[in-house]
Formats: sequence, C-alpha cells, structure tokens
Amino acid sequence: MTPPRQDPLARARLLTSPSMSPAVVRELERITGRPAGPAYATAPDGPFVYVGDVLPEGLRSPRLLWFHSVNAGTDALLAAGPWPEEALLTRTVGRMGERIAQYALAWVLAECQSVPEHSAQHARAEWRRLPSELVAGRTAVVHGTGRIGSAVAGLLRACSVRTVGVGRTPREVPDGFDRVVVAGSEDETAALADARWVVSALPLTGATERFFDASRFTAMRGATFINVGRGATVDLPALEAALRGGSVRRAVLDVLPDEPAGPDAPAWRLPRTVITSHSAGITADEDVVADFGACWEAVTEGRRPALAVDTRRGY
Amino acid sequence: MTPPRQDPLARARLLTSPSMSPAVVRELERITGRPAGPAYATAPDGPFVYVGDVLPEGLRSPRLLWFHSVNAGTDALLAAGPWPEEALLTRTVGRMGERIAQYALAWVLAECQSVPEHSAQHARAEWRRLPSELVAGRTAVVHGTGRIGSAVAGLLRACSVRTVGVGRTPREVPDGFDRVVVAGSEDETAALADARWVVSALPLTGATERFFDASRFTAMRGATFINVGRGATVDLPALEAALRGGSVRRAVLDVLPDEPAGPDAPAWRLPRTVITSHSAGITADEDVVADFGACWEAVTEGRRPALAVDTRRGY
Repeated sequence: MTPPRQDPLARARLLTSPSMSPAVVRELERITGRPAGPAYATAPDGPFVYVGDVLPEGLRSPRLLWFHSVNAGTDALLAAGPWPEEALLTRTVGRMGERIAQYALAWVLAECQSVPEHSAQHARAEWRRLPSELVAGRTAVVHGTGRIGSAVAGLLRACSVRTVGVGRTPREVPDGFDRVVVAGSEDETAALADARWVVSALPLTGATERFFDASRFTAMRGATFINVGRGATVDLPALEAALRGGSVRRAVLDVLPDEPAGPDAPAWRLPRTVITSHSAGITADEDVVADFGACWEAVTEGRRPALAVDTRRGY
Repeated sequence: MTPPRQDPLARARLLTSPSMSPAVVRELERITGRPAGPAYATAPDGPFVYVGDVLPEGLRSPRLLWFHSVNAGTDALLAAGPWPEEALLTRTVGRMGERIAQYALAWVLAECQSVPEHSAQHARAEWRRLPSELVAGRTAVVHGTGRIGSAVAGLLRACSVRTVGVGRTPREVPDGFDRVVVAGSEDETAALADARWVVSALPLTGATERFFDASRFTAMRGATFINVGRGATVDLPALEAALRGGSVRRAVLDVLPDEPAGPDAPAWRLPRTVITSHSAGITADEDVVADFGACWEAVTEGRRPALAVDTRRGY
C-alpha cells in the first residue's frame, strides 16, 4: 500500500495490455519517459509497471511494482487470484461520476418523458399526445455515497429531485444529497418506501453481495430501480419477483451478475426492464491518460496516489 | 387590455368548454363562487367569462368579458377570427417551463446516452457496449428568452452545458443563460455554428413564421435541432435539406406546421427525426386551476393579470 520505492521504479519496464489503443500507449510512454513493451506470457526479469484491464497469470509476480487499471471497478481483478503483496494498485475514474450521473438522469427522464413510447409511435407514424411526469419533488434513494453516488445525486438534485443517500455508517452529508441514512436501518426502509427511484452505485465487496434482496425490493412501493454499480449486488430472482409483484415499477440494469449476458440469459426476460451492456461508465482514452498521469506524478514524488485501491477492502 | 370592470364581472356567467374535466369545472366554480354553465351555441344575454381551449364562433361577442385559455399558446385562438376588442385574454402556463425543460433535457440525454439504441439492443437480447457523449462544456443555443426558454436553459446549464439565448432585442441576460445574442446578428450565426443543440421555444407571431429557414439551418455545423415552440416557425423543406446535408445532425420536433399529423404527412419521413405529438408542454388540470385562480384574484382586485396576453402582439 505504500508507493513503490524510487529505485526499482526508475528501472521498471512499462508493459501495457494488448487491448489498449496505440494513442494511449504513446501517451503513457511520454508520461513515463520510457518505451512501452507488450505484455509477455511471463514476468520480465526486473521490476515492471503494468497498465491494463486484467492481470495475466504470468505477471502475477513479486516483480510487479504497480498495476494501473484502466477501469474504475477492480473487483474482478482482485478476485482472479492473490494480489502480489507489495504491488500498488491504482484505478481509472476519469469523468466516470459525470458519465454515470448523466446515464442515470437520461433513464429517469426517458421514463418520465416517455422517450421509448414516443420513438415507437414515431416509427408507426402515429400522432398521439402522451402525458409526462415531472421529476421535481419526487425522491431518489442513492445507494453509495462516494464519488459516483454523489455525482448521481447532484445531477438529480439539479432537477429538484429530493436525494437520500444510503451509506454504511453515519457520516456527514456528502455533496448532492439532502440527507443520508444508514444501510439496514429503519430509515433506509422508510426511504425505499418513499422512493420514486432507487439508484445503486455500490461497489462489489463481501458486504454488498446480493445487498438488494427480497427484503429491500419488497420495501419499495413502485420505485424504478437503476443499477449502475455491480451486478452481483442484486439478487436477480428477488428483483424478478418484485417486478412481477409491482413493488418495483421498472428496472434499468447496466450491470448483471454474469457479464456479458448471452442471448439466452434469463435477465433479458425480466419484465419492464432495460439492460444496457455495462455502458454507463465506460472510461475514455483521455480518462486513462489523465488518471495514470496523476498517479505517476504522485508515485514519483513518493506520495500514495488518490486513486490507489485498498486491495484488502476491495475499493 | 384593461381588466374587466367589476360591475359586469360580478354579474357574469361562467362558461366552460366541453373538453374540461368535471373536477376542474368544480374548482372553477369554487374560485368564482358561481355555477359553471356549458358553452352554448350563442352568447348569453349578459356578460360572461369563458374558460376553455377554443372560442366557439357564437361566443365571439362583445359580451365576452374574459377568456381564460387552458393552453399556453394562443396563436390559434387569435388567428381564428377577430378578437372581441374589450375582452381580456389570459392563458395557462402552469409548470410548463419545467415540463418543457425536462422534455428538452430528456431528448438531449437520450441522444448522448443512446437510449433508443440500448432499447433496441435489449429487444434483440444483444449485449454490446455503446459509448456515451458527455454534455458538459458543449453549447446549446436557445431561441426564446422568456419563461420557457429560460427554464430550458437553466436545466441544461445544471448539466454544465453552455447556454446562449437568442432574443429579438439586446437585453439583460435572463436566468439560465450564459449570454444572449440578437436574432439575425452575426453573433447568432456564430452561435449556431458552435451549437451542439439548437432548441427553439419561439411563439408563433408574424415575426417568427418560418424563422428557421435555409440560412439558419445551413449556419449550423451538426447541431441537433429541438423544437418545443411552434411548428410554423420552421421551414420544413429547409430542415429536410439540412438533415440530408448534415448541417443538422438530428431533429426532435414536438410541433409541426400542420397538427395533428396524419399518417401520410411528409414530416414522418424526415431522416434522423423524432416527432412527439405536441406532448412537451401539456397543461395538467392543476395548472389550469392554479393559473385561473391567480388571474381571478388579480382581476377581482382590478389588476392586470401577469398571464394576460397582448392580443395585438400575440403573446
């Protein structure tokens, strides 16, 4: 968890995953002042820094000084095998909060303004007025009060939506929220009953697996459920029962427990649901370059980067 | 244009159009303290107040003291025949600014977040990540700097969009706008070239008929055009040419020169366009009651209501 020592870092090779674009690789070379090599099947002889999405098995080595993930979520990376004890792990957040907030608001407004229904009417050349629903004054409950949850809440609040955050522990009210309640408390149950929307931005940890279970879904009274966090935080059969029973009005799922979903995956058959292929928070090339650059600056100055991951807690 | 005199108002009958819901009629009776009568084919013997959408020919009479329109736009009403000279005309705005602003933002975000494309992929059970476009820092040009244009701009600005208003005359910058330019100036042309979105909230007057013509559409450089004002402010063949040529990227048209559009209307065949059946600013029953109530209070106190229409200017 401490930054890599300067001496091996100065000698470290830079390796990049094959999925990265040549333009990004060139920027990483510019930032580090050294050529980037492709990922080999086995670790190099000396210390190395790796930038990419997954850690190839052969590189799971004590010589790995630092892994910079091009993604924000590092659960899959950490679940794939034991993390090399000394290796720093940093991640790319970029403008993900903003992207995910605009995703959430887009689907909130699409439902209230009947965007899919209007598109379907247009395709049939049918002129028929459709009513709209105003979002102002309604309540959104946002699970996750970190950077992403805060960005989602802030944008909803700009549309005069009341925003209630759900966090693990009592804490100061972060930006974007009108108030915060504690997960599992009676306050959370009351907020779920009151919610027009429940948005989850939870990371996947031991404490959040199947967090959205039958008890939470049946506490809702017609909320639309939007998941921009991780798929495995949701008990899908419980969600299906709630959609059929009406306690959940609609679902917008960017993430699923098993991704990518094949054409026969049962999730496609959930009623009143849209699945969006984990598109809400795609990191752009410029996000990777900017966040790696900030981490590089911190690391070469001997500081712990703000984007470092606690590999034991998982985020 | 002066409020009705108190004496005939005290004796005036209250008439309502057949399209109004019984619940609204009951509220109007409560506000005025008199029973509402249905609209007759001919005007009553004495003074009367009419609440409704269109003015039946038989009621186009000097005995009409006051017409309260359940709609915000009164162009059709004024175009249907000479307005009785002494009659006050008021209109319902309600939360229309808010409704239209949420409509505009819904379609802006639907495009940037690929809402229709995700819905189509879902229908095919297809998992494929789609990129999104961030709205922050892009420019929206909003024609019309009154209540509705201001509400549209304010909501876009909450998403960090730069907002440029276009007005008839130089004026102070209204709420929601970063700056305002004058229609027909070089500044407007430059703003159109810079715009990611051009939103029209123009009323229909002699000065705005076919305002969006070939010169404005060709000044755009790939903007999406959203019309929440009046259909006849747009030269549709010029819009079609701009869509085909690419200076207009997409169009979202809530209004058309001829409404309702029949299934054979050429507007349905515009490329990359969605038509939404004049649904952006539907007034709700509570809007009619609230706005009529405010006008009634002003009128009975001898003041000109804020929602009075200048029947010569048309808005």
